[in-house]
Amino acid sequence: KNITVTDQFWKRYRNLVKKQMIPYQWSVMNDNANIKITKEREDNRIPSEKSHAVANFLIAAGRQKGNHYGYVFQDTDVYKWLEAVAYTLKYAPDEDLQEVADQLIDLIADTQETDGYLVTYFMIEAPERKFKRLKQSHELYSMGHYIEAGVAYYEVTGNTKALSIARRMADCIDENFGPEEGKIHGYDGHPEIELALAKLYEATNEKRYLDLAQYFIIQRGKDPQFFDRQIEADGKDRDIIAGMEAFPLSYYQADKPVFDQEAAEGHAVRVVYLCTGMAHVARLTHNKKVLAACRRLWDNIVRKRMYITGGIGSTPIGESFTYDYDLPNDTMYCETCASVAMAFFARRMLENEPKGEYADILEKELFNSTISGVSLDGEHFFYVNPLEVSIEASRRDPGKSHVMYERQNWFGCACCPPNLARLIASIDQYIYTLDDEKQTIYAHQFIANRAQFDNDISIEQSSHFPWEGHIKFTIENPQRKHFKFAVRIPYWSAHHYTLHHSGGEISPESKNGFIYFDIHQEQFEIELNLDMRVHEIQANNRVKHDLDKVAIQRGPIVYCMEEADNPAPLSLYRIPNKPEFKYTYKPDLLEGVGTIEVEAERLEADPLDGPLYRDYRTYEWKPAHIHFIPYYAWINRQPGEMQVWVRKQL
Amino acid sequence: KNITVTDQFWKRYRNLVKKQMIPYQWSVMNDNANIKITKEREDNRIPSEKSHAVANFLIAAGRQKGNHYGYVFQDTDVYKWLEAVAYTLKYAPDEDLQEVADQLIDLIADTQETDGYLVTYFMIEAPERKFKRLKQSHELYSMGHYIEAGVAYYEVTGNTKALSIARRMADCIDENFGPEEGKIHGYDGHPEIELALAKLYEATNEKRYLDLAQYFIIQRGKDPQFFDRQIEADGKDRDIIAGMEAFPLSYYQADKPVFDQEAAEGHAVRVVYLCTGMAHVARLTHNKKVLAACRRLWDNIVRKRMYITGGIGSTPIGESFTYDYDLPNDTMYCETCASVAMAFFARRMLENEPKGEYADILEKELFNSTISGVSLDGEHFFYVNPLEVSIEASRRDPGKSHVMYERQNWFGCACCPPNLARLIASIDQYIYTLDDEKQTIYAHQFIANRAQFDNDISIEQSSHFPWEGHIKFTIENPQRKHFKFAVRIPYWSAHHYTLHHSGGEISPESKNGFIYFDIHQEQFEIELNLDMRVHEIQANNRVKHDLDKVAIQRGPIVYCMEEADNPAPLSLYRIPNKPEFKYTYKPDLLEGVGTIEVEAERLEADPLDGPLYRDYRTYEWKPAHIHFIPYYAWINRQPGEMQVWVRKQL
Ligand SMILES: [Zn+2]
Ligand SMILES: [Zn+2]
Repeated sequence: KNITVTDQFWKRYRNLVKKQMIPYQWSVMNDNANIKITKEREDNRIPSEKSHAVANFLIAAGRQKGNHYGYVFQDTDVYKWLEAVAYTLKYAPDEDLQEVADQLIDLIADTQETDGYLVTYFMIEAPERKFKRLKQSHELYSMGHYIEAGVAYYEVTGNTKALSIARRMADCIDENFGPEEGKIHGYDGHPEIELALAKLYEATNEKRYLDLAQYFIIQRGKDPQFFDRQIEADGKDRDIIAGMEAFPLSYYQADKPVFDQEAAEGHAVRVVYLCTGMAHVARLTHNKKVLAACRRLWDNIVRKRMYITGGIGSTPIGESFTYDYDLPNDTMYCETCASVAMAFFARRMLENEPKGEYADILEKELFNSTISGVSLDGEHFFYVNPLEVSIEASRRDPGKSHVMYERQNWFGCACCPPNLARLIASIDQYIYTLDDEKQTIYAHQFIANRAQFDNDISIEQSSHFPWEGHIKFTIENPQRKHFKFAVRIPYWSAHHYTLHHSGGEISPESKNGFIYFDIHQEQFEIELNLDMRVHEIQANNRVKHDLDKVAIQRGPIVYCMEEADNPAPLSLYRIPNKPEFKYTYKPDLLEGVGTIEVEAERLEADPLDGPLYRDYRTYEWKPAHIHFIPYYAWINRQPGEMQVWVRKQL
Repeated sequence: KNITVTDQFWKRYRNLVKKQMIPYQWSVMNDNANIKITKEREDNRIPSEKSHAVANFLIAAGRQKGNHYGYVFQDTDVYKWLEAVAYTLKYAPDEDLQEVADQLIDLIADTQETDGYLVTYFMIEAPERKFKRLKQSHELYSMGHYIEAGVAYYEVTGNTKALSIARRMADCIDENFGPEEGKIHGYDGHPEIELALAKLYEATNEKRYLDLAQYFIIQRGKDPQFFDRQIEADGKDRDIIAGMEAFPLSYYQADKPVFDQEAAEGHAVRVVYLCTGMAHVARLTHNKKVLAACRRLWDNIVRKRMYITGGIGSTPIGESFTYDYDLPNDTMYCETCASVAMAFFARRMLENEPKGEYADILEKELFNSTISGVSLDGEHFFYVNPLEVSIEASRRDPGKSHVMYERQNWFGCACCPPNLARLIASIDQYIYTLDDEKQTIYAHQFIANRAQFDNDISIEQSSHFPWEGHIKFTIENPQRKHFKFAVRIPYWSAHHYTLHHSGGEISPESKNGFIYFDIHQEQFEIELNLDMRVHEIQANNRVKHDLDKVAIQRGPIVYCMEEADNPAPLSLYRIPNKPEFKYTYKPDLLEGVGTIEVEAERLEADPLDGPLYRDYRTYEWKPAHIHFIPYYAWINRQPGEMQVWVRKQL
């Protein structure tokens, strides 16, 4: 299939990737950008003097002298960037950029060792420790990221060297890992290789890669002493990343087999990368046990541990999940990468089974806590995406040093910026899903596009989503093939939508969040009008942080109030019993956003020289106006307070 | 003056110190107790295999072989215990215990070096590093704690060796520190020596000690590079306490002179120990600048940074203050020692100036967040005194690993248990204050007692406080001296009390929270009836954690609800608009407590299989009963949820 994104909203982001993010990130990784790199949290050990990511390759390849600098997984910044470049070359061909990328691939090829190994840190600093401390080494994680990039670049440009580097890496890993005697019966501390090998298998049809991916999934947590034995042998006090030994095995999803993991535990990005790989492998191998594990973890994350923005990871300590319904709004992690990963996972689950819920969450991620990670200018980034921010808290509460109140140029650990670039650049892959027999086309995201499928079937989706709810599908089927076309009815519109189609009397079947049309006509039109009213959302009352509060949502967009529009303290506003929301699309605000206003109430702040405690008395509520903007667009003006959850008059 | 505590409430605690805490703590410090020592938070580096506190002396004295074990300030556990013993010997003489203490003093004397130095860690492990890394070494802090103990023990028992050890320590410090050339122009990273030297000065009248105390106060923060230069010289990577270099200079109140410190910053216990010393020195030296600094920090703490329980320290990171109105209830620190220190500070401020507020806060500390640190059985302790607890949060949110939901036998850092013992054992010193000219007797705490003052004046205070508000003072003045007697009207009763006295027509003067009586009669009686109604307290609305919530207080006692009485989740209860509170004293519950019940409402918890988010709908409130117990007595039955702040129907 061939998809052209015509959507206004996403075209802007895709241009941003192409015009700003790609060149900016390249200059940063080459240490040519005149920027300050921010430590992702208050910790002296974080390498933040420079990126050095490209230089590490030059040194490892012998083209330059020097030491490795940065995290052990610094290579992955380059790989994710390369992957993003691959996707942009599809929608915005650019010979100069392709030339740069080709040369980068030459450099990577030069760097790669004869056995296929490539992790610049170990090659430069510790060749004798390769694969010897997998709990911390990120070696398979790093090579996995290249494999993803190499496959993508090959598929877009036909560069076979890009693919062969990937194959050689996979061969190296296959040579060293697996159930056979003499191989390492282990896995990486950071899952990633599983999803990469699944992609490589699909690109090459080489069964070994799929088997190896499945091996890593099944082996994980089977032998909980594996990491400790390695560390014992490698030397206890020789941490590659300081402080990591503070975390329990569940941080690495290595405390028990995935089949026994009832809930999402540990480092959020690790969990969801693992799930993404599992879901992909489950589809390719039809392994029902693996799929069941995916469903279990999906349900736990989505129904118990996810912020309304799609963010996950309730604590900065280990960037981790905590427990069900623990969703503090001002200390959470909600790493951009974790939301990007949820989009990956949702996509893979949709490919396993057509449930609207997967697409609902995918949409939630795409329109909220992924893109909140990048500024509208494309050159500033969040690692952490909070739901409630005060400058004073971030500055003066060391427990919130990770909560930035402005997006930063770059981070010591710069995993997020290029991750977001590759997601946005590949957004066309997230719009439709086909079932295995290609009998059904699932249109699950409302991103305007023109798509060409097999058998000459083409679909045009036009809309002004997410601002307007009118969606039109025009299907051309010149060969009059019989197929099914399924349109998702999003959860936020489930009880309020209208549907018109050109199929005459037929009344489409509805199932699991999709409406199915049997199509055989040469042309078919569907018009969908979604519920674009403003919704006040409340959380399950077991989430004590959101009690007596509501969040504002319209379509998939979660809103927030920020100090740029509303005088602080924001905690003193409340939404009245029967609010009247006024929605306005403002083309000149924040690159064009829909805003929501409401006549509300607020308390006057108690005087600074007043008592800290006193006998209870009722307050007088003063009329006040609240102005909401989309969450993803916050803090693109001046720094200040922000909050998603607002008190509600009971 | 000579004071006998006759108060039921405090006699029970003082018996507990004498009968349980003193022998129990002695056995723990001698490693004879069969207990598990708890790390005060999740951190592998915390020494928690044993106490070893006494053994460190035996080793340093050459009576035993071995290494030092425990924190660098482990000696202070022994000293604080010894100080508590001194106070108990006053109200419960005990030859056997005195013999044990005398022998301990002999051991300490044996351990002390000829120049007066005594810190077992440095003597055993690093004699060449004495006074070389004061930021971390706690050397003056440790010796200061001995000085306090030695003075107290000497004053109660007349043991002159106890005092001379203290003098020799002070002489050693005086020899090494001060403005003179060749001496160290610095101070300890942990204030304490200041308050100890002030006490020693009062016991010995040796002016050098007071001057040195004042020097440490004035020198502090004057030369912010002092610590760094020492560390540079001592060796950067040779931390005595791992992880401490993560904290800023303000953690040590060493970033600027105390005169420039506008707010209480850094480690809470450090701040308040420093303030206690400053307030003491201010009175002794009449240094108005120092007193002004005390008032400034007092105001900031009490009006902006104190929990309703009297707890201070809003973050576990550095056990520190954060910023004004930042008072999270479930992540705070509220160290027992910090509340004990606030009692010290309040007492010293009262000695500077008779303001009811100091006594109000002293009372708040005595009846709430100090004694909450010990179980009713005297053998289990809190380091951290939270206002809201859930077992799941403590277990599964690593950011709450410091929040224990049950009191523990002992801690790796065991500063709190003996600190509490010495406070309770010396409670008689906290009831009355005399002004410098002994013209006025201030009766500021409602702790029943018989007190004998100079000139044959005696006062009997009888009451069943804190459960009943009837307080009777019977003053005998056989010499018919003229003096003033001032009774505090507590803040919680300021608008609701009755006063009767035997002085006929005279109507007493009221000022700054005290009511003043001019007394010359041979006998004088005052009867005070305080407001013992239940109060609903609300926080300044800048404290966002307490918005729409109330805390229940009766007299000085802050109440809480715990799961032992109220089915969880406690977050789902709310107190109605016009509540009717029912107070009952229950002699058989929790060693006798006043309980409060109210007909309230609660929400049913949303179903576990229900959605995490949904369109807002109003809930139906179900009638429910809330049962409150005093905060200090929580978790003496079974573990479970607890909360102080409860939602309020607006
Ligand atoms: Zn990231
Ligand atoms: Zn303590």
